[in-house]
Amino acid sequence: MDRIRLTDNLSFSRIIHGLWRLADWNYSKEETLELIDYCLDQGITTFDHADIYGSYTCESLFGEALALKPALREKMELVTKCGIVLESPNRPYHKSHHYNTSKEHILSSVDNSLQNLNTDYIDLLLIHRPDPYMNPVEVAEAFNKLKASGKVRHFGVSNFKDHQFNMLQSYLDMPLVTNQIELSAYELENFHDGTLNFCLEKRLSPMAWSPLAGGKIFLGEDEKSIRLQNTLKKVADELGASGIDEVLYAWLLNHPADIMPIVGSGKRDRIQRAIASQKYDLTHDQWFEILQISMGHDIP
Amino acid sequence: MDRIRLTDNLSFSRIIHGLWRLADWNYSKEETLELIDYCLDQGITTFDHADIYGSYTCESLFGEALALKPALREKMELVTKCGIVLESPNRPYHKSHHYNTSKEHILSSVDNSLQNLNTDYIDLLLIHRPDPYMNPVEVAEAFNKLKASGKVRHFGVSNFKDHQFNMLQSYLDMPLVTNQIELSAYELENFHDGTLNFCLEKRLSPMAWSPLAGGKIFLGEDEKSIRLQNTLKKVADELGASGIDEVLYAWLLNHPADIMPIVGSGKRDRIQRAIASQKYDLTHDQWFEILQISMGHDIP
Amino acid sequence: MDRIRLTDNLSFSRIIHGLWRLADWNYSKEETLELIDYCLDQGITTFDHADIYGSYTCESLFGEALALKPALREKMELVTKCGIVLESPNRPYHKSHHYNTSKEHILSSVDNSLQNLNTDYIDLLLIHRPDPYMNPVEVAEAFNKLKASGKVRHFGVSNFKDHQFNMLQSYLDMPLVTNQIELSAYELENFHDGTLNFCLEKRLSPMAWSPLAGGKIFLGEDEKSIRLQNTLKKVADELGASGIDEVLYAWLLNHPADIMPIVGSGKRDRIQRAIASQKYDLTHDQWFEILQISMGHDIP
Repeated sequence: MDRIRLTDNLSFSRIIHGLWRLADWNYSKEETLELIDYCLDQGITTFDHADIYGSYTCESLFGEALALKPALREKMELVTKCGIVLESPNRPYHKSHHYNTSKEHILSSVDNSLQNLNTDYIDLLLIHRPDPYMNPVEVAEAFNKLKASGKVRHFGVSNFKDHQFNMLQSYLDMPLVTNQIELSAYELENFHDGTLNFCLEKRLSPMAWSPLAGGKIFLGEDEKSIRLQNTLKKVADELGASGIDEVLYAWLLNHPADIMPIVGSGKRDRIQRAIASQKYDLTHDQWFEILQISMGHDIP
Repeated sequence: MDRIRLTDNLSFSRIIHGLWRLADWNYSKEETLELIDYCLDQGITTFDHADIYGSYTCESLFGEALALKPALREKMELVTKCGIVLESPNRPYHKSHHYNTSKEHILSSVDNSLQNLNTDYIDLLLIHRPDPYMNPVEVAEAFNKLKASGKVRHFGVSNFKDHQFNMLQSYLDMPLVTNQIELSAYELENFHDGTLNFCLEKRLSPMAWSPLAGGKIFLGEDEKSIRLQNTLKKVADELGASGIDEVLYAWLLNHPADIMPIVGSGKRDRIQRAIASQKYDLTHDQWFEILQISMGHDIP
Repeated sequence: MDRIRLTDNLSFSRIIHGLWRLADWNYSKEETLELIDYCLDQGITTFDHADIYGSYTCESLFGEALALKPALREKMELVTKCGIVLESPNRPYHKSHHYNTSKEHILSSVDNSLQNLNTDYIDLLLIHRPDPYMNPVEVAEAFNKLKASGKVRHFGVSNFKDHQFNMLQSYLDMPLVTNQIELSAYELENFHDGTLNFCLEKRLSPMAWSPLAGGKIFLGEDEKSIRLQNTLKKVADELGASGIDEVLYAWLLNHPADIMPIVGSGKRDRIQRAIASQKYDLTHDQWFEILQISMGHDIP
């Protein structure tokens, strides 16, 4: 398993495991622990959470499993996020869906995450979404306090465009170490609008959410999915890959931006295929064939 | 009345009075002077003009009133703009509507404004619109000359996007101290396209024109206005505000970018409501409810 | 002929000759040499190529003519490009249309260009298109090697937006000295999206491809061409210009960004008109009339 160095004292496994659907899998604590153990054995040491996943339940489900074998904590990097407020039976006092990046909200969200995850530190805290109502002075105060207390080691953002990143960074005393963005052969927005170039310019290795486009390509209902599916199958055959998901991961891994795809499945074979995808070298012909079939038109 | 510090030796009242419709009000000199006196008494010390307002007449109407009581000049900040050329009976030699940010045009426009306003200095001169034909070397020469002569104390822009601001700033010897942009709960472009973030990044407090969307919301003819109106009324009730205009102002004033709304009315009750709006603290729920009803869809 | 200084030891003629259609003209070597001689006599010393022009044949056609009179090499600046891979009978091993800015591809492309052009150095090498699969570390290695060997004196890009330029520049040891972009009164994208402002901010004089919109305006089939044609004719009459192409060139030359239009014709009268266009001073009325008729609506 390759590792990506995000900063002097933080590195992530190239493939990251994402827990956003953990609540849907109805795992016992022991089963969740087995999944964690499995990932660690395979070299996947980085686990991606958010306070809101599973309507505020996924962190706890993970933390309860981790409590069965606390020694694992030191073998992994825990990522979590804050800043989105959801209506939820688990947060009956939430009156609406909105963003909140106030100092108070960030601090209390992190305290909740620490308790839920059964840990006393988070390796990387991300602001989940760019907040049009953000007070960057408050974010900076919260980050400084969390850093000083040791509750959070590093900070980053998610779904930020360049101007949102530059704005927030200009108020902070520490560097934002990553931007977790949607990146896949299906969803090219961050390729087109300069966000991925911005990551390259700033030497930020991005985390990629929905690297398989949320499964859209497999179901193949829209025209774009169908044409992508055919090309991905062709390239899978050329590479000798065992499925189009391997090609989708390889398409990201071959890109020079050190993209770290997040695998959101608990199934061992799917995790295996994500890992296996690291071995494929795509030709320029193959990489651009996939790009262009996704765009639906030729490059100029 | 709060005040916003734009730079070491320039601060504006949080609420600014805008004179662009002054010619429509058919005030006598004495009535205009009464309005000026009223604003100053309320703590509104900043007055926003442009050479072209009222087809090149508003500056003079204001200046003639000011001439009745010249001591008021030192109690106010005068903002005016240049760079748009309009066809007008008052400028019979103008052959077309275009922009002109040449050195010659800027200098002569300021000389006119000084004469019209009956003053020997302008506190803040703005380039009215980004000019695709701008020669930034000429703008820099004009600004240097105006600064050296004392005719203009500070410089800024209006309606500029980040690339236009960065370009012009890179040629100037002094900082641009504000960007006057359209900002309202109705017109969200500068929230979405990064312009407001750019202001936050550069520590520029923006002046907001059309904070009430030019009255569009009150007339309620389009779908967006109607749905905004309903939400604004609901929030006005929650706050105990006396009208939706107070909520519209408060929505801007609560934003952390130190937005300075420009009130374009001569009516005392409307000016009062702008001032009163400073007292409301919107909850995150309220701020985002207004944002989302304006967008017409939920945030992600 | 005006000259534009791109950097300390590189200047271009204001009007540049572009060879992208050379293969279509069916010139003998001697005729091509006559064209080169003609341009040089007129002060047009800069010749624009790309590896792919004429399906990989134009560089050779030019080089074969140059071989007849090698002393001309020192009197001219040669620009060429790399990074696009085309399917072509002349490159039977190319399997698809894609971009390739790998170190290996850049180096071999330059070696081909040197051989084709019958020269031992290129004055300016451009990356032809922003490559979404670019590894900027490899580009930097290739550029360093080409610079050290003397094969290429200066480097630039073509069709880059600001984020693409900033990203690549951040990896390079030498400055990118120009951005060759599409600029014409017909095609305003680079005026509107900030690319031309970026050039002004970075003190980059852009090379303009298709300054006549590829002849579109002359044929006048679409609505935009027809309305532009009428306005251009009117302005040509006002200036005493001998054709609308002179006005189109003058519209670019009058802009303060030191735009260098590329003339892509072998016809002497057309080259003459490009040269002649340097003498016209457009009024602001004229420049904006052309802009607005192209936009199809008034400026705000």
